[in-house]
Amino acid sequence: MIPLLVEVTPTSAATTPLVATLFALVVVYLSSKIGGELAVRINLPAVLGELVMGVVVGISGLHLLGGTSEVVTVLSEIGVILLLFEIGLESDLQELLKVGTLAAIVAFVGVAAPFALGTVGLIAFFGVPVLPAVFAGAALTATSIGITARILADLGRLNSTEGQVIIGAAILDDILGIIILAVVLGITQKGAVSALDLTYTVVIATGFLVVAIFAGRLFAPFFVKIVNRLRTRGDLLVSALVFAFGLAYIASIIGSEAILGSFAAGLVLAETDKREELERKIKPVADTFVPVFFVSVGASTNLAVLNPFNPESQAGFAITLFLLVAAIVGKMMAGFVIRPKIPVNRLAIGFGMIPRGEVGLIFAGQGSQVPGLSPAVQTAIVVVVIVTTFMAPPLLRFALGRQEAPKT
Amino acid sequence: MIPLLVEVTPTSAATTPLVATLFALVVVYLSSKIGGELAVRINLPAVLGELVMGVVVGISGLHLLGGTSEVVTVLSEIGVILLLFEIGLESDLQELLKVGTLAAIVAFVGVAAPFALGTVGLIAFFGVPVLPAVFAGAALTATSIGITARILADLGRLNSTEGQVIIGAAILDDILGIIILAVVLGITQKGAVSALDLTYTVVIATGFLVVAIFAGRLFAPFFVKIVNRLRTRGDLLVSALVFAFGLAYIASIIGSEAILGSFAAGLVLAETDKREELERKIKPVADTFVPVFFVSVGASTNLAVLNPFNPESQAGFAITLFLLVAAIVGKMMAGFVIRPKIPVNRLAIGFGMIPRGEVGLIFAGQGSQVPGLSPAVQTAIVVVVIVTTFMAPPLLRFALGRQEAPKT
Repeated sequence: MIPLLVEVTPTSAATTPLVATLFALVVVYLSSKIGGELAVRINLPAVLGELVMGVVVGISGLHLLGGTSEVVTVLSEIGVILLLFEIGLESDLQELLKVGTLAAIVAFVGVAAPFALGTVGLIAFFGVPVLPAVFAGAALTATSIGITARILADLGRLNSTEGQVIIGAAILDDILGIIILAVVLGITQKGAVSALDLTYTVVIATGFLVVAIFAGRLFAPFFVKIVNRLRTRGDLLVSALVFAFGLAYIASIIGSEAILGSFAAGLVLAETDKREELERKIKPVADTFVPVFFVSVGASTNLAVLNPFNPESQAGFAITLFLLVAAIVGKMMAGFVIRPKIPVNRLAIGFGMIPRGEVGLIFAGQGSQVPGLSPAVQTAIVVVVIVTTFMAPPLLRFALGRQEAPKT
Repeated sequence: MIPLLVEVTPTSAATTPLVATLFALVVVYLSSKIGGELAVRINLPAVLGELVMGVVVGISGLHLLGGTSEVVTVLSEIGVILLLFEIGLESDLQELLKVGTLAAIVAFVGVAAPFALGTVGLIAFFGVPVLPAVFAGAALTATSIGITARILADLGRLNSTEGQVIIGAAILDDILGIIILAVVLGITQKGAVSALDLTYTVVIATGFLVVAIFAGRLFAPFFVKIVNRLRTRGDLLVSALVFAFGLAYIASIIGSEAILGSFAAGLVLAETDKREELERKIKPVADTFVPVFFVSVGASTNLAVLNPFNPESQAGFAITLFLLVAAIVGKMMAGFVIRPKIPVNRLAIGFGMIPRGEVGLIFAGQGSQVPGLSPAVQTAIVVVVIVTTFMAPPLLRFALGRQEAPKT
């Protein structure tokens, strides 16, 4: 058996959901503040400290936070949705479209390279059967938008060309990652995947963003008009949340990702004259939800799977190292393959694509459905997600630190 | 069978908790905005519109919101906690202590009068056995802090003398209500309640607030010092949430009420020089959580129990009317019994104490444990909670409107 990503905390049985949630929130906020403050004092992005403190209070450490509470899980998912809304709000759609081609190349290479390296390597060097090898390769494809955007924001670089390329590419490879997961699981479940299913998944995931943004732009003046006529408290904020959560809900139910919806909502509202006021009002709300996501990611990672002296982990240690190299080299290639006309820090783009997160963890969770996927390979996927997440902040800071950084 | 307060929505089965929560939040925010905006346009407090729209989308209307989701329930409970934190932050502890005696008298009479009227009346006029009569009388005791504070805030009167007396009395009678519930349930469960249990409940519920406030005042300068040294985003807000949720958690686990903890935290932080900045930052967070509470209260009320033409409801219609009168007259007496030295609007105080809410609904939920409590009486309790909640805003507005109201 591989160690579970999520364990039951012993304390949660006797308390009500509210009391358990209050306790979890106090732990999350304390951890995020302590971790963040310590990190910035040793010149690292705050998010790294939040992740590390998450590990300290989570199942690898003090066991104060498990991942079992449905409420905390939903709060953390709403955190990612709000994070993407805020990123959309701070992004410049014109700028994002300008770097669109670059982002598309980075996304495509950043998906294809680790996928090919991982899959071929597992078959050739480790004798892994084709299907589990494809699955493991696919798990390496998607960059974590949440982690990478937060690092960029911590560094004050979200709106740099590199930042926009990374965010654009991360969004695209998330879509590609979801498509690959759907295809791979389709093959493993039915023995084959229908062309119709594949077409549907592709069209929905890529089409939603385009339709949401263009329909949203038509709707935006109407939105501003309504908000200007409201007289009750929370007029702008609550209306914006309806828009963001509404698009996130629509994205979910048509089979795409909730975060694409809130990101589109942010992009659309960023073009209205409400942008500044909304940014100011969404910040405290994001500060309330987003730490739940980062601390939870740290808290639910089990460092025991990293121990090379543990006989259970040893079997897959070579595979883990190989997949880790494939994951890193593949994304670095994505940065260096582009030939932009404007000067761009390609090292930073490569580093920025490294952290795997949400989608990688979703893959790991689906592994049990794949026949022939050994515990060693499944553990390796989890380890790659953890290590890439932890190594990206210092690397990206190093790459961007070589240019002058703006004070924010 | 009495109609249930909470019903299962048919749509929730197929979706994930996140998707269900997103849908619920969109419904909540749309309802609260539409209801609130319509209400202020016909010169009523926004909260009344939120409650009514909650009924429209809830189990008595469109069935878009049930009360079954654990996540939505916790979000709504966090909403009340944040509401009380904000009320504490906007309250003036010195002012509250100044009106302390008045508030204590209002609270005591406002608990004793409806309790006595309801219990004695049920026994004398309707032949209800003693134990269920005591239970029904006790259900009439506690004013809804949430509803009443929100109405005062909507009217810009939270900091008036009347507002402070009402809030202070509502907090005290919530404590008294919880004590009575514990005692009554203790008697019904064991046939008797131990003096030790009773003493413990009284000491804890009344003592917590005092200790939290005075210990908190010693801690406040230390809190400001820490916050001033933080360098990461969300420094003040997240630290304040740790304090508020931490005290709410402590209040819960020692057997008192979470809202007392966050209220104490607000009172304490209101005396620091961070008050204004914190008020500005907590507002958007409160705007995100608090509507979930008000819309949920509306959504989970079943108007079918109000139908006098329904044979099931008819049986208890006279009892319902009687309890309603007892509930209203009892609280009005609380307003008129005081003889303050300063000029105070006693009618407004009486009206302000009328809405029952959280504690009343808790009583209704515990009714099945009381032997001999007939469905008619149990339904009557629910109806009284609903009707008093709906009638208070216009009454309070009427009473306060007779003085000049400040523009906010």
